[in-house]
Amino acid sequence: MIIAVRNGTKKKDLAAFTEGLKRHGVDVHCSEGQSRIILGLVGDTSRIDADRLTAHHLVEKIIRVEEPYKMANRLFHPEDTRITVYGGDGQPRSVGAGTLAVIAGPCSVENREQIVSVARKIQQAGAGFLRGGAFKPRTSPYSFQGLGCEGLDLLMEAKRETGLPVVTELMAIHQLEVFDGVDIIQIGARNMQNFTLLRELGRCRKPVLLKRGLASTVSELLMAAEYIMAGGNENIILCERGIRSFDNYTRNTLDLSAVPFLKKKSHLPVIVDPSHGTGINWLVPAMAKAAVAAGADGLIIEVHNDPENALSDGEQSLTPEEFSSLMDSIGKYAAMEGKTL
Amino acid sequence: MIIAVRNGTKKKDLAAFTEGLKRHGVDVHCSEGQSRIILGLVGDTSRIDADRLTAHHLVEKIIRVEEPYKMANRLFHPEDTRITVYGGDGQPRSVGAGTLAVIAGPCSVENREQIVSVARKIQQAGAGFLRGGAFKPRTSPYSFQGLGCEGLDLLMEAKRETGLPVVTELMAIHQLEVFDGVDIIQIGARNMQNFTLLRELGRCRKPVLLKRGLASTVSELLMAAEYIMAGGNENIILCERGIRSFDNYTRNTLDLSAVPFLKKKSHLPVIVDPSHGTGINWLVPAMAKAAVAAGADGLIIEVHNDPENALSDGEQSLTPEEFSSLMDSIGKYAAMEGKTL
Amino acid sequence: MIIAVRNGTKKKDLAAFTEGLKRHGVDVHCSEGQSRIILGLVGDTSRIDADRLTAHHLVEKIIRVEEPYKMANRLFHPEDTRITVYGGDGQPRSVGAGTLAVIAGPCSVENREQIVSVARKIQQAGAGFLRGGAFKPRTSPYSFQGLGCEGLDLLMEAKRETGLPVVTELMAIHQLEVFDGVDIIQIGARNMQNFTLLRELGRCRKPVLLKRGLASTVSELLMAAEYIMAGGNENIILCERGIRSFDNYTRNTLDLSAVPFLKKKSHLPVIVDPSHGTGINWLVPAMAKAAVAAGADGLIIEVHNDPENALSDGEQSLTPEEFSSLMDSIGKYAAMEGKTL
Amino acid sequence: MIIAVRNGTKKKDLAAFTEGLKRHGVDVHCSEGQSRIILGLVGDTSRIDADRLTAHHLVEKIIRVEEPYKMANRLFHPEDTRITVYGGDGQPRSVGAGTLAVIAGPCSVENREQIVSVARKIQQAGAGFLRGGAFKPRTSPYSFQGLGCEGLDLLMEAKRETGLPVVTELMAIHQLEVFDGVDIIQIGARNMQNFTLLRELGRCRKPVLLKRGLASTVSELLMAAEYIMAGGNENIILCERGIRSFDNYTRNTLDLSAVPFLKKKSHLPVIVDPSHGTGINWLVPAMAKAAVAAGADGLIIEVHNDPENALSDGEQSLTPEEFSSLMDSIGKYAAMEGKTL
Repeated sequence: MIIAVRNGTKKKDLAAFTEGLKRHGVDVHCSEGQSRIILGLVGDTSRIDADRLTAHHLVEKIIRVEEPYKMANRLFHPEDTRITVYGGDGQPRSVGAGTLAVIAGPCSVENREQIVSVARKIQQAGAGFLRGGAFKPRTSPYSFQGLGCEGLDLLMEAKRETGLPVVTELMAIHQLEVFDGVDIIQIGARNMQNFTLLRELGRCRKPVLLKRGLASTVSELLMAAEYIMAGGNENIILCERGIRSFDNYTRNTLDLSAVPFLKKKSHLPVIVDPSHGTGINWLVPAMAKAAVAAGADGLIIEVHNDPENALSDGEQSLTPEEFSSLMDSIGKYAAMEGKTL
Repeated sequence: MIIAVRNGTKKKDLAAFTEGLKRHGVDVHCSEGQSRIILGLVGDTSRIDADRLTAHHLVEKIIRVEEPYKMANRLFHPEDTRITVYGGDGQPRSVGAGTLAVIAGPCSVENREQIVSVARKIQQAGAGFLRGGAFKPRTSPYSFQGLGCEGLDLLMEAKRETGLPVVTELMAIHQLEVFDGVDIIQIGARNMQNFTLLRELGRCRKPVLLKRGLASTVSELLMAAEYIMAGGNENIILCERGIRSFDNYTRNTLDLSAVPFLKKKSHLPVIVDPSHGTGINWLVPAMAKAAVAAGADGLIIEVHNDPENALSDGEQSLTPEEFSSLMDSIGKYAAMEGKTL
Repeated sequence: MIIAVRNGTKKKDLAAFTEGLKRHGVDVHCSEGQSRIILGLVGDTSRIDADRLTAHHLVEKIIRVEEPYKMANRLFHPEDTRITVYGGDGQPRSVGAGTLAVIAGPCSVENREQIVSVARKIQQAGAGFLRGGAFKPRTSPYSFQGLGCEGLDLLMEAKRETGLPVVTELMAIHQLEVFDGVDIIQIGARNMQNFTLLRELGRCRKPVLLKRGLASTVSELLMAAEYIMAGGNENIILCERGIRSFDNYTRNTLDLSAVPFLKKKSHLPVIVDPSHGTGINWLVPAMAKAAVAAGADGLIIEVHNDPENALSDGEQSLTPEEFSSLMDSIGKYAAMEGKTL
Repeated sequence: MIIAVRNGTKKKDLAAFTEGLKRHGVDVHCSEGQSRIILGLVGDTSRIDADRLTAHHLVEKIIRVEEPYKMANRLFHPEDTRITVYGGDGQPRSVGAGTLAVIAGPCSVENREQIVSVARKIQQAGAGFLRGGAFKPRTSPYSFQGLGCEGLDLLMEAKRETGLPVVTELMAIHQLEVFDGVDIIQIGARNMQNFTLLRELGRCRKPVLLKRGLASTVSELLMAAEYIMAGGNENIILCERGIRSFDNYTRNTLDLSAVPFLKKKSHLPVIVDPSHGTGINWLVPAMAKAAVAAGADGLIIEVHNDPENALSDGEQSLTPEEFSSLMDSIGKYAAMEGKTL
């Protein structure tokens, strides 16, 4: 961290300010130029609150040279993180480090027939993980809110039938009690900065699929991961799912540049959700391929046996047939990127 | 709600589709034009999920003519809502319906001396409510997270000393247990769509100050209020506090047009937070005045006795002297808008 | 400007890099800290291209401490700029420095009767300047594009009848030939970064009302003004007219914080366009008042004698009666801010 | 176009309104429901100004079912447009319809040595077109503005030496006089809605590479193309180059979903600029591959022999070696999408 001190600062004030900085456990090197004093902070500056410093009357400007995240930082953990879960059949399935993880299934679990048949079909098409929402975050209190615990039971049934590990969204920490059989906990975009929840997730050991918030910077996404990791849970999968922009021809603006950027800055696996990222089913295949080409470690895709009658998000779901056909191309793209499905 | 049906739809399919719609409790009027069939839905369409309908293969386009919120809608509740709390001295203080509520205080409660002295000073300057954060949402897990329960105790002490009602942020529902003495619960921008939390707040009877999310539309803000109101708690204060845009010369982009818009669409009081809305203390007075001129029912302003050494958000805090001087102008602007302080 | 040099840079490379910087006419002060070398540039850095420097392999990060604009900068021109024009009656009318300039009129000039009658009515209501579009930038090539030169003639007629100075939009530099009688040239949001046009405007002496681009930062707005000023034309009026954001309940997001920010950074007058800034006529009065309270030096407001049949932008126009009633409140707000109408 | 008429509209007023609509050359079908009247407009509604209609007091809401563009619309021109140019060697090189066009070269033409050597290297690597800026749009009037006509001469020399067709930016219509040897005219993002310029381009016959504006919707991009096409020039190449969003870790937010969307809605070729789209050279290869996977018809990539000393945009340029290595992968991705380089 570099601090440009205002012109005309008195020696005494500067000394007091410098002492204050050192109390955070960093070294401070002072360089007095002709017209300006510059302080260079050396050491672990992640505990220094740049926002707070900015308010100080001696401070003209601050540059953070170091990233504010540590545990998520590739600098301190150069190798790719690989996260492995075992599903219902005890077989290992990985996310990260050379594999391409495909997570598929309906937006909402609706009934036994639906979830089991979709699970079978995505498995036949080559998906490695089943997704399905039991607790659903909906903009309107009057919309279908998910089947809740009953939905979780149905997911467990689909897991038993197919062996596929299950990914489903957790909306509040007390739901952890019923998440025993869930293999990967999804944290939705609207909860990415629910810091109380993130802190609690740090105490559990299940992998967390953390979706980028609608208006969150990639740096904030990494800081959200850092919240969980700081608590001791290092099994985080980052997920780009589209951000809000001025153009609404797509439901969200899928920011694929985040994939190679996050891969360079962090060792955590990065997956992409082209279904929420576009909101339009006929755009999903193109963007799924693009995500793999951009270096994604996986995809999470909505598949529904009857999109037109889906209880939520039908307009962005693929049919099992469309998904199966997409998997064929995805396999080739993954191979080109040196990844195995 | 109006639905344009795709060209070439068969009578039989249309009949089945129409029957499906009627099951939601609405009447459906069908108008067959030369080249297009249009369905007009009459009745309570708030329970119809437009997103879901969009996926149907018969649907070309949907227009929602009605707003998706009911309890927050001025149409069904033409008079302004007025929310009254009694503080530590039993005196009524109101938000909405002709008053201008001024809530002031530090971003974070730091110690007894700080919160009590700030409370006294803002009271002398004419503020009606004391704000102060005990549980703080921070982007980094390594930043100061607030004093927690100790902070609440200190707020209660400031309330006893001054009589001022207290507004403070709740980050998780279990914190309600310790919020007994809190007069107005603040829900922060990052929790505006924490739907589990909103639902629980519907069960309590304390007024809720609901901040607009960083990337939330005004319609989503009203739907978040609707979540709480649908549970039975109608004491909601809406708060515009700035949204994210491409320009970052201010911390957020304060969207003052939301004030007259929300006032027209809803009967709920609307207040403005120029401190978070700009993030720069020398912009706060101009934007506070502008908010009142735009029709706001109140302001929430950060005041700190020593902004340079504040543990958070110092750069956007006013000193008590600056605040006092601002209150003088605010009084005149409120009078011009026919509001009493 | 401060440059953090990468760790491990060799003496020789640093010397060569420093020499290169000095060739831009600045002094370079080098401070070697324990773990990092920092260069401080002193002098006129406005000619140094920070983007270009960023690509250099020795550069880790750059902070611009100085603003990149000079002629528009209040630092080098502390007093408010006041721009005076004389209209059709030879009477001086000013923008900036203690006055509140109100510019009003229809979006498009449509016919003699319309423009003359609107001009008379806004004059009676107290407006000081007449606006009206002759050359119209329209998103569709099939929409009404303005009356062109005929529209200018009609504006001149309205100017003769009322004496009001005329503000109208210039879309291409060759139109200058027919702008003799125009008092203030408006440059629209879509041309704010039409650099060829800006450069040419620097050669003329007419005042320019420069609208902020839809996705332009306030810094880019000041740089656009700098383009014109660098050519010798210092009569620039800055105009905030709303930016693009994710929410479209208003046509644009009126960023009123830009007003006090621009007033502090620059000596140029700053006016606000609440008509384009909201796109909804019933929001215009509230936002016009808010703009004055925020410190604006003027307003530009669309007024149409028959908004429902306007050839463009009717939905954001006030009737002459609504405008007249707004002027009454505006006068009081201006007085509170120490400005004369 | 469907118009919902306000409740309580009188027969007489409705008849007058309907007559007005018919004068635009469309048929109007009126459907009176129990609680609402709906008008369906049939025919060419592209000349109807929806914004203008919205202001009418009888109008409650409008839905545009048809797209507002005609000539750019795939509906009326189902086959892909292919644009062919002949370069300096008389060999045909195409954009669109099954080819992958790669346009490469420096941001700015700097000198003979630079442009000729880069041209040779990108040709050896397999690029089909040379780009290079002679007239440069720069945010600051004090930055390097391009070599102008001298730059064009140097581009012509590179064209003679290599045979490669030349793509370069036109900033003002008078520059057309010196664009004789230019094969494809580039219109930059900041001029996408310079409607006077677009109209003039409709009169020339050279292909136009039209870049999406920083805050332009894909629909506005198609309308900008429509401006040129309406004038008679149908040789338009659309280019996605990143939009402005709240996150600035990349220079722009590359919106790759625009590629499959534009390809579906329009018959025009769509290319991608990953250099401006990210602004970071190490992100370019990943995003170039992603663009091809998303279905792009081509790429425009900045290549500089000495990025560190480039006079502009060095930080986003590839070296010729990096470009050559990228071309190897691009070839494979193009083949997977059934395209030939």
